[in-house]
Amino acid sequence: MEVSASTDKRPEPIDLSHHYSKATKNRVESSIKGFYKYFAIPGIGNLAGGLPNNNYFPFDTLEAAAALPERFTPTPNKPVDPPIAQLAATKLSDDVSSSRVVVPKASDNEDILRKIDLKTALQYGTAQGYPPLYSFLRQFTTQNLHPNVPYKEGPEILLTCGSTDGFSKTLEALTNTWNEDKDPIADKEGLLVEEFCYMNAIAAARPRGLNIVPVAIDDEGMKAHGTGGLYHVLSTWDESRGKRPHLIYTVTIGQNPTGGTLSVQRRKEIYTVCVKFDVIIVEDDPYWYLQYPSANAANNHDPSLSGAAHLEFNGPIQERPMTQKSSGYPFLDTLIPSYLSVDYQGRVVRLDTFSKTVAPGCRLGWITTQPKLCERLLRITETSTQQPSGFVQAMIAELIMGPHDPKHGRGGDKGAKGWKMDGWIRWLEGLRGNYERRMQTMCTILEDGKELIKTGHRKSLDDEWSVVKKVRPYDFIWPLGGMFVWVRINFSHHPLYPTTSLAKLANALWIHLTTKKYLVLVSPGTIFSPSDEIRDKKGWSYFRMCFAAVDEPDVEKTTKRFVAGVHDFWKKKSLDDIEELEAAGVGKDMEEGLLDLRGGWGC
Amino acid sequence: MEVSASTDKRPEPIDLSHHYSKATKNRVESSIKGFYKYFAIPGIGNLAGGLPNNNYFPFDTLEAAAALPERFTPTPNKPVDPPIAQLAATKLSDDVSSSRVVVPKASDNEDILRKIDLKTALQYGTAQGYPPLYSFLRQFTTQNLHPNVPYKEGPEILLTCGSTDGFSKTLEALTNTWNEDKDPIADKEGLLVEEFCYMNAIAAARPRGLNIVPVAIDDEGMKAHGTGGLYHVLSTWDESRGKRPHLIYTVTIGQNPTGGTLSVQRRKEIYTVCVKFDVIIVEDDPYWYLQYPSANAANNHDPSLSGAAHLEFNGPIQERPMTQKSSGYPFLDTLIPSYLSVDYQGRVVRLDTFSKTVAPGCRLGWITTQPKLCERLLRITETSTQQPSGFVQAMIAELIMGPHDPKHGRGGDKGAKGWKMDGWIRWLEGLRGNYERRMQTMCTILEDGKELIKTGHRKSLDDEWSVVKKVRPYDFIWPLGGMFVWVRINFSHHPLYPTTSLAKLANALWIHLTTKKYLVLVSPGTIFSPSDEIRDKKGWSYFRMCFAAVDEPDVEKTTKRFVAGVHDFWKKKSLDDIEELEAAGVGKDMEEGLLDLRGGWGC
Repeated sequence: MEVSASTDKRPEPIDLSHHYSKATKNRVESSIKGFYKYFAIPGIGNLAGGLPNNNYFPFDTLEAAAALPERFTPTPNKPVDPPIAQLAATKLSDDVSSSRVVVPKASDNEDILRKIDLKTALQYGTAQGYPPLYSFLRQFTTQNLHPNVPYKEGPEILLTCGSTDGFSKTLEALTNTWNEDKDPIADKEGLLVEEFCYMNAIAAARPRGLNIVPVAIDDEGMKAHGTGGLYHVLSTWDESRGKRPHLIYTVTIGQNPTGGTLSVQRRKEIYTVCVKFDVIIVEDDPYWYLQYPSANAANNHDPSLSGAAHLEFNGPIQERPMTQKSSGYPFLDTLIPSYLSVDYQGRVVRLDTFSKTVAPGCRLGWITTQPKLCERLLRITETSTQQPSGFVQAMIAELIMGPHDPKHGRGGDKGAKGWKMDGWIRWLEGLRGNYERRMQTMCTILEDGKELIKTGHRKSLDDEWSVVKKVRPYDFIWPLGGMFVWVRINFSHHPLYPTTSLAKLANALWIHLTTKKYLVLVSPGTIFSPSDEIRDKKGWSYFRMCFAAVDEPDVEKTTKRFVAGVHDFWKKKSLDDIEELEAAGVGKDMEEGLLDLRGGWGC
Repeated sequence: MEVSASTDKRPEPIDLSHHYSKATKNRVESSIKGFYKYFAIPGIGNLAGGLPNNNYFPFDTLEAAAALPERFTPTPNKPVDPPIAQLAATKLSDDVSSSRVVVPKASDNEDILRKIDLKTALQYGTAQGYPPLYSFLRQFTTQNLHPNVPYKEGPEILLTCGSTDGFSKTLEALTNTWNEDKDPIADKEGLLVEEFCYMNAIAAARPRGLNIVPVAIDDEGMKAHGTGGLYHVLSTWDESRGKRPHLIYTVTIGQNPTGGTLSVQRRKEIYTVCVKFDVIIVEDDPYWYLQYPSANAANNHDPSLSGAAHLEFNGPIQERPMTQKSSGYPFLDTLIPSYLSVDYQGRVVRLDTFSKTVAPGCRLGWITTQPKLCERLLRITETSTQQPSGFVQAMIAELIMGPHDPKHGRGGDKGAKGWKMDGWIRWLEGLRGNYERRMQTMCTILEDGKELIKTGHRKSLDDEWSVVKKVRPYDFIWPLGGMFVWVRINFSHHPLYPTTSLAKLANALWIHLTTKKYLVLVSPGTIFSPSDEIRDKKGWSYFRMCFAAVDEPDVEKTTKRFVAGVHDFWKKKSLDDIEELEAAGVGKDMEEGLLDLRGGWGC
C-alpha cells in the first residue's frame, strides 16, 4: 500500500546535488513532453516523429519455452529436483515444469502498463524502462523488496543494462574525472571499497582518476569502527591524497569474493558514519535472495569463529518491530534487508540485476534511489543506452506478468499461466534452495577436511613412538549468502615454512591444485586485492571457491579433490616439481596478481 | 577475401592516441587472458569463475516467428506486397513469408563462431560481442559493406547497444569533460555538426562542456568549402572560444533532419580538410541501405535545384575504377559508400545500428574503426554495458545465421532456412523498396502542390479583371536516402508578410496544420537547430516530414492534408483564429524551440 504524499510523515531525502559531477549538473531535461499533447489529438497524422514502421520489423512473434516457478524446490531440498539432465532433454509437451511464453506482434490490451507486444517493445521506448516491466519492478521494489524505506515517498527506479552499466552511470553521475597532468590534488575524488572486492568496479573507477580507498573488513564485511574501519579511514583522511572520499562501493550479501553478509546492526553503524562524513553508499546486491540461514547453524558449531559469522536473519514479520511493514511474502521477510531500509536521508544507490535471478546475458537490471538522483541517471541513460533491449524486456515482462490476453497466452498449455508476483518470489525461493544445497555440499567437504591428522616420527629416544598432531591447513566460514566460499590457507603452518616464503608457498599450492591429480582451479585472493599493499601483505593467503558455476555433481567431486590437494601439499618435503612447472611459466599470472574478473570471467 | 598482413601494401592507420581522453588513456587491458590456458586444462574443475549455473536459467528455448528475407519486393515495387494487414493476421502455418527461428538451450556445434544457444548467449560473454554475431558482422562489415577501406589490415568492429550508446562511448573515448568553473578555456574541446542536426547527439555532447560548432550545409550535407563550410570554420577558428574542434558528428545518408546525402566527391573534400586539421569523423549511418536513385530522376526535372540534388549513385562494379573491389552484391555496389572508403588515415569512426534494419528496440549496433581505437572502446564497454543483451544477440544471430543444427533448425517448416548473408542483403533490398515507395508517395503529392495558382482581384481600374499568379508556398528536394523530407516554407511569399513576422507565420502554420481540418503534425526546424542563432535565423522556416512511421495508406492521406493545409493557410487574411489557439497555449512548445528528439520520439 503506497502512502499518499500528504499523510507521509517520513523526512524528505536530503539534497545530494553538491555531489553531482559537472557533466551531470549540466544535463537538461528533455522537453519532448511538450509534444505529447499533440500526439494525443484524435486522428492526427503524425509525420513528426522519426520512427521506422513496425510492420517492417522481421519478428512476428517472440516466444520461449520457460520454466514454471515451481521447477525447483525451496530450502531445504535434497536431492536435486527435477534432475537437470532430464530437464534439458524434456520436450515442452511432456514437461509439467515448463510452459510457452508468447509475445505477440500486437496486443489488444489498452493499458500500456499491461500491454506487452512487439509493436511496442521493439519500437523506440522510454529510457526509464518498458512500461509494463518498469511498473512491475517499481511495485516489487517499493512494496515487496523494500517496504520500509524511511524517507518521504520512498525511492524511484530506473532500468539498466545490468549492474555494471548501473554502476558506470552512477560513477558518471557522482564523480568527476581527475587528470593528474593538470588538476589540483584537492580535486581528486575517491571511492571507498572493501579490503577485498569485486575488481570490475575498480576497473570502472580507476580510469576516472579516483583514489581507490580500501576499508578493513571482518567476516561480515566492511567495518564501521576500529583500525582501518570506515570511521577511522574518514576521520584520519590525509587531504594531501585528495578529497575525502564521498562514495562507497559495496556488496553486502554474499560479498564477492569473501562471501560476507552484513547484519542490520552493522548497516546502521556504517550508515551513521556516512551521515557524519556525507558519503553516498552504492550497494551492489546481485545475491540478495541467496541467503543461507543453514550456514549460521553450521558456523555455530565452531567456537573459534568470531561473532560476525552468526547473523540474525529476520524472523517472520510478527517478530519484527511493529513499525516495520511486511513485504507480503514470508520468504522476503526473512531476508536481511537492504541499506535502503536504514536510509533515512536518501544517500543509498542500490543496484539490482537479473543476471543471477534469470541469466547474466539478460544485461538487465535496475537502480533504486531517491527520485532526484534517479532523474539525473535517467538523463544519462537517454544519451547513452536509451533503454535495455526490447527483446529481453518483453520476454521478462511476459514471463512474469503475462498472459493478459488469453488468445496469445501460453500457447494453450494446460494450467499454464504467468508467474505474477507470487511466481517470481517462488522462483527465487527455488533458486535459493539450489544454491544453498550446493553451498552445503562444498562446505561440508571443506569442514571435514579442515583438520589434518599428522603422524610424526620420534626425533629422540625420549619421544613416544609416534605423535599425533592436528594441523589446520585452512579456515573458512560457511557463507551466509551468495556463491562463494573464501578460504584462508594457513601457510605459516606448512612444514616448509619458514624456509620457503609464504607467498611462494601460496603460488605453489595454486599450481599444485591445477596438476593432473587434483585438477582444481580456484581464484587466488591476489586478484581481488584493490591495492598492491593488500595483495602483497595477504592477498596470496586466500582462495575464492565458487559453488555456483560447475555442474551439480562436480561441486562434490571438485571440492574433494581440492581438499586432497591441500592435504597432499602439506606433506610435501620440497617444491622441486612445482618449480619445474613454474619454470615453464605455469602460475605466473596468478603470482603477478594481474588478473581481474572482467568479461567471460563473470562476477 | 582478406588480405594477409605481409602482402598488404595499404598504409598503416595513423596514431590517434593524442585525441584519447585522459580516462581512456588510463584504461588498462584486462589480463584475464592469462587464465584462459588453465580453463583449457582437460577435466579441470573450475571453481574460479563466478558464473551462475546455466541450468538455472528459466528459459529452455527462445523462439520467434520471423520474416523470410523475400517478404518485401525490392525497388521498384508497387503496390504493397504482401498487404501489411494480411501479414499481421497470418498464422505461421499458412504464411509462406514467415518461418520459425529457434535458439535451443544447448547446441552441439563445436565451433564457437557458429554455436548459437542459450547456454552461451545467456551466460556472461565477451564485450566484443556474441562470437557468432560478432564474426558475422565483422565479415559483413569488412568484406561486403566496406570492401575498400584504404588502410592496412582494415578496420575492427565492436558491438554496441545501438548507435546512441556507440556515440556515447566514442565521446567518452575522444573528449574530455570541461568545467567552466575551473578549467582554462584553452581546454574546452568542440564537436562539429551540421547546421541542422540530430539533437540527441548534441544532448550527449553538451553536458561534457563541449563547444557545439555548426558547419554550413547544402542539399547534400556538410560543406567543405565556402562561407561557413568546414575549411572556413577550422581555418578561422578563434582560440578564445576553446580548442579548435577535433571531432565531427555527421549523418551522411538521408541526414536527419534534412534528408541530405553526401556524394563521394564531397566526402573526399571533407576528408582532406579533416586531414589538414587533424579532425576525427564520427559517421552515424542508420539509413545507409535506404538510398533512392529514383529521387535523382525526379529532382532532375526541376531546373531550380542546385547540382547537389543530383548525385551519382555508383554504377555496377564493372563501371567502377579497377582498383575498387566489389562487395559481392549488386545492391551494395550501387550504394554511395561510407567515409571509410576514403579513410586512408584511419580517422573515421562509423556507427551502425539494427534500429532501422530490424527494430529500434533491439538496442543493438556496432562501431567500425581502426583497431587501436576499437580496443579503447572495448575497454570502455567492459566496465559499462559489458555486451548487448544475449536475448537480442542470439535471436538476430539465429535469424541470420541459423540453423546450423537441423534438429533445432526452423521448427520443421518446409523450405525454411536461415537468412545467411544473401538473405540479409535481400531483406535490406526489400526494406529499401518499401521506404522508397513511401518516399515517392509523399514527394509526388508535395510536388503536385508546390505551386499555388492564386487568383487576385483588381485593385484599380487599370488592372485586368483578374490576375492569375503562381506562388510557391514551399520548396523541397526529393530525398536521396533516409526517412525524411525537409520542406522549406517560403513565408516571405505569404500575403500577410511583412505585416506579420516570418517566425510568427511559421508558428501559425504549424498550429493551423494541427487543427481539425488538416490534423497533421510535422517537426518544426527549430528543434533541429544546434544553436539559438540558427533557430532564430532560419530554423522556423523548415518542417521535417517523416514518411516512415505512419501506416502506408496514411502517407498519402496525411501528405494531402498537409498540402491542403498550406494552401488554405496561404489564403488567410488574418491570424485571429490562430491567435485564439495560441492564447490557449497551443504551439507554445514549438515556438520556444525547446523540443528535442529524445526518448519515444525516435531519431
